[in-house]
Amino acid sequence: MQNYSELHQLISLKIANTTYGTHPKELYEPINYMMSLGGKRLRPILTLMACDLFGKDVNNALDAALAIEVFHNFTLVHDDIMDNAPLRRGQETIYKKWNMPVAILCGDLMMIKSIDLLAQTQNTNLAILIQVFNDAAAKVCEGQQIDMNFETRTDVSHDEYIHMITLKTAVLLGAALEVGAIIGGANEIEAKHLYNFGKNIGIAFQIQDDILDSFGEGHQVGKLIGGDIAANKKTLLLIELMAVVHKDDKALLNQLLSEQHQEKKINGVLDLYAKYQIKEFAENLKKQYLSEAYLHMQSISIAEERKALLIDTANELMGRMS
Amino acid sequence: MQNYSELHQLISLKIANTTYGTHPKELYEPINYMMSLGGKRLRPILTLMACDLFGKDVNNALDAALAIEVFHNFTLVHDDIMDNAPLRRGQETIYKKWNMPVAILCGDLMMIKSIDLLAQTQNTNLAILIQVFNDAAAKVCEGQQIDMNFETRTDVSHDEYIHMITLKTAVLLGAALEVGAIIGGANEIEAKHLYNFGKNIGIAFQIQDDILDSFGEGHQVGKLIGGDIAANKKTLLLIELMAVVHKDDKALLNQLLSEQHQEKKINGVLDLYAKYQIKEFAENLKKQYLSEAYLHMQSISIAEERKALLIDTANELMGRMS
Repeated sequence: MQNYSELHQLISLKIANTTYGTHPKELYEPINYMMSLGGKRLRPILTLMACDLFGKDVNNALDAALAIEVFHNFTLVHDDIMDNAPLRRGQETIYKKWNMPVAILCGDLMMIKSIDLLAQTQNTNLAILIQVFNDAAAKVCEGQQIDMNFETRTDVSHDEYIHMITLKTAVLLGAALEVGAIIGGANEIEAKHLYNFGKNIGIAFQIQDDILDSFGEGHQVGKLIGGDIAANKKTLLLIELMAVVHKDDKALLNQLLSEQHQEKKINGVLDLYAKYQIKEFAENLKKQYLSEAYLHMQSISIAEERKALLIDTANELMGRMS
Repeated sequence: MQNYSELHQLISLKIANTTYGTHPKELYEPINYMMSLGGKRLRPILTLMACDLFGKDVNNALDAALAIEVFHNFTLVHDDIMDNAPLRRGQETIYKKWNMPVAILCGDLMMIKSIDLLAQTQNTNLAILIQVFNDAAAKVCEGQQIDMNFETRTDVSHDEYIHMITLKTAVLLGAALEVGAIIGGANEIEAKHLYNFGKNIGIAFQIQDDILDSFGEGHQVGKLIGGDIAANKKTLLLIELMAVVHKDDKALLNQLLSEQHQEKKINGVLDLYAKYQIKEFAENLKKQYLSEAYLHMQSISIAEERKALLIDTANELMGRMS
């Protein structure tokens, strides 16, 4: 079994050696640029680990792993247009470095190429792979739209929020694992358990992301504390606060949401988070999803030592910044 | 064998009965809207005809036919953003009726759903279907980019122009037929002949479109004559004129291209088209591609009467507006 960094090297090499096309260069240069920006490569590595879990050589899952990564990057290219985002991984986004039409077409082409890659997978029922892959792909689009809908709503419940992050980010972690499991030879039930392991880890990870933005330490989070608060971002924390805040504090909260003095705003909201035990609420919810994830992993009848790498990876993901 | 209007009814019914999803409605309503705008449904009908040509019931190809139509509509949704187009088939585009992010996401989702539909096809090698479909899909994106590149170039050759329209529109007609042929049980060589029949018909059709814009009769074309000339659109005709115009007429042409008086501009360019026999050049090129198309059809060893419907459809397409 290879560890995370060995698998990272394997997928990085695969990315470096893959050509998506050459002409017109206005399309293929941005695609190569985007794919070379780096990153944790978490999703494709999960695919490889899942394949390995069921005893197959990870090379069988390499095309599918890259398919997942190309798909993920396609969603980022289009999200960056919708969010008018200037930077991605510290570099200019395609949208900014080139232009909007190029970013639309590059994304489209990356989506097509991701299916091409998936279809390269040998000795596996392609219809099932496509079903798993496309089901997650559609959900990612749905999640992005629901997230955009939230921007103009003030009555989002935390169930709705969890539903949104499930679609927008968690299902793709699940699908990355399920695709790898299917290629590895897992039966349908085992593959679904691994999907649910990934999905629940993904939800827990997003909740943690929200917690850390308000309660992490700057050097661990890699950005200033309270950025979400400053931007009035509808995180799980703010959604829950808005739902439970006593009517006596409602005016204060509304005042803080439109406060121009950032430090005053952040400290004020943090005080309310403390008063209403919002951090504890979020931590508790995160733990529930983690427990759910591990239950699914336990349901798979494979020696525990074979599961260690996936569980360690999940733990590291959760512990990395807390 | 069913005729065009019966097949049109079959695919219309399939479109009416297909649900792509429900939630969030901000995504699925525009998709249903786009798919209900109507049109000739040429591409999916070609898929059904190709399946029938090889003796299989067209119902076997119905999912794949819809896949082609959904894919085609996805490209229109994204093209409308890039072109900032207000209308599509006389109705508001998704981009205008909703907004840009919705149009991006709807298109993405339609691309995903098109692969889903293709993967519903039974008793056919799915990897091969996907290869044919995706090869055309990638080329459509490439063609759109090359077309956008032309906007800022003054040195486009007619070979480059033919290459662009081949990618942007002709290959999808080819792929629509090839997919149908494969589902119908054609061997690889027969399927490729049908692809090339469709591709060459598609090129001829685009050339005819350019000719009619300058030389058709208004009521047949459904728009004013000379629209391309008025807009300085780089059609085959203008590209050829720019390539062959004598240096003595170059100043006149440049003056006409920046002429504000539309009637004067259109008549002036039409005079130059006549002087340099541009219409004859284009007609001749069109005939070459039509001959090439029919040669490919002849190469398929199937009774001529079985080919009649496809050939009649192609003839009608070419004759429709000339």
